[in-house]
Amino acid sequence: MSDARPIGVVDSGLGGLTVVKELLRAMPNESVIYFGDTAHFPYGCRSEEAIRRNGMQSARFVLGHDVKMLVVACSTMSSVLLDDISKEMFDVPLIGAIVPVVKAAAKRTMNKKIGVLGTAATVNSRAYEKIIRDIDPECKPYQKACPLFVPIVEEGLYDSEIARLVAQKYCAGLVEQGTDIVILACTHYPLLMETIQETVGANITVLDSALWIAREAREILHAIGGFCPQSMDNERQSWFYVSDVAPTMIQCASAFFGSPMLDLMKVELSEVEKSI
Amino acid sequence: MSDARPIGVVDSGLGGLTVVKELLRAMPNESVIYFGDTAHFPYGCRSEEAIRRNGMQSARFVLGHDVKMLVVACSTMSSVLLDDISKEMFDVPLIGAIVPVVKAAAKRTMNKKIGVLGTAATVNSRAYEKIIRDIDPECKPYQKACPLFVPIVEEGLYDSEIARLVAQKYCAGLVEQGTDIVILACTHYPLLMETIQETVGANITVLDSALWIAREAREILHAIGGFCPQSMDNERQSWFYVSDVAPTMIQCASAFFGSPMLDLMKVELSEVEKSI
Repeated sequence: MSDARPIGVVDSGLGGLTVVKELLRAMPNESVIYFGDTAHFPYGCRSEEAIRRNGMQSARFVLGHDVKMLVVACSTMSSVLLDDISKEMFDVPLIGAIVPVVKAAAKRTMNKKIGVLGTAATVNSRAYEKIIRDIDPECKPYQKACPLFVPIVEEGLYDSEIARLVAQKYCAGLVEQGTDIVILACTHYPLLMETIQETVGANITVLDSALWIAREAREILHAIGGFCPQSMDNERQSWFYVSDVAPTMIQCASAFFGSPMLDLMKVELSEVEKSI
Repeated sequence: MSDARPIGVVDSGLGGLTVVKELLRAMPNESVIYFGDTAHFPYGCRSEEAIRRNGMQSARFVLGHDVKMLVVACSTMSSVLLDDISKEMFDVPLIGAIVPVVKAAAKRTMNKKIGVLGTAATVNSRAYEKIIRDIDPECKPYQKACPLFVPIVEEGLYDSEIARLVAQKYCAGLVEQGTDIVILACTHYPLLMETIQETVGANITVLDSALWIAREAREILHAIGGFCPQSMDNERQSWFYVSDVAPTMIQCASAFFGSPMLDLMKVELSEVEKSI
């Protein structure tokens, strides 16, 4: 059994490319259709209503492309509208950004104290808190909103005194509260992994959501016999769509993707709307 | 002669409230109709096309309210689409964010070297460079994009080691190049005025755009006899509209406005579209 269709990935911007990188690393034989809502990025500072409207529109665009699975790469989007998306999906698996990494965290924590670093909207939604308690009611979640991490990453300041000071500011509480696992609950944060790990110290395990999303995707495709046939090895191509393209985005996309970026194809918002 | 109509102010988000604060400080008898496009904020990282589409829609919303003057508070918006707006305005004066402060800078510079701190989109548009040369061809502009300033302000970190390090990073080049005037070309930056002034030193004059926009508005209304009649002193009310309201915005609005914020009224994007 095999399935040659691409994996769909939807995100609020370009950060979801860190998830695409891990998906293609875990399954080099697969291809991806990506949509990043760069016209409304960042979702982290928007109202739930705006996230719902723009996020559903983005998800529907990807679902309109005959994908074999939908990955919601953005934690903010996952925290607000995963249930809404699942109501419109009947025949393909849906993977959000939150459950895979929380399962990994719950399995690894020794003292049942799990820290979460995320955007303001993700933290306000309390989605991680809820899912952590659902997966292991004994676990205690500690959340911290980190609005400066995204622009620091977009400025390329991963390894700077500024990044270290900001990481100290955001992580101090989680260290004090004695968490032994910290989840990076935003697609941008993996680029700050080293700085954050250095800040919290070697006794705290820092988990990158992207890695666990990719593992979950591979497990599911393995279970349903949904991998791409080996014979198509040389024909694989991925497609990257966005709702706005500004000059700085190309460079940003390459940083997230980990290699020079392929074409970012712009989709007019009205086209996306029409596809609803 | 007098004119009881309100002054219209359009902005990409809430930062334009720093301009409203200066307008009402310069003309306490006036009232304002404000629209902030918080559903698409920040404009600084978008394409020209997106800024044009969303900015025109926002300007038209304000112009639909019988205002006696339109102030474009956002530098990014001013740099990209002031000409487009002026083509749709026939009977009321239009004030952009750029010309008033550039005139003040050109009058004050001793060595004809003017620094500009702004968003990526403002700097990429080269609008300040062009207007500085138009106003005084002998002046040399030095621009620097400062993407971290906006989120630092939104995090309330005006007076922090993080703000100082970031200011040093952004201002070092302008100091080296010997500028004697630095323009704060974004509505958010006045909240970092002290930190920036401290960073560049007392020999460099830092100019806040909001102040000069307000002075220009007062001069124009004075010249055309357009002030509100004194008798209406106690009836003045301002209206603040936005395209999205998230929990963090209320607090942010108060910081920009300099006092506890009045109601932010949400306008549905579709309503704005209909008003075109």
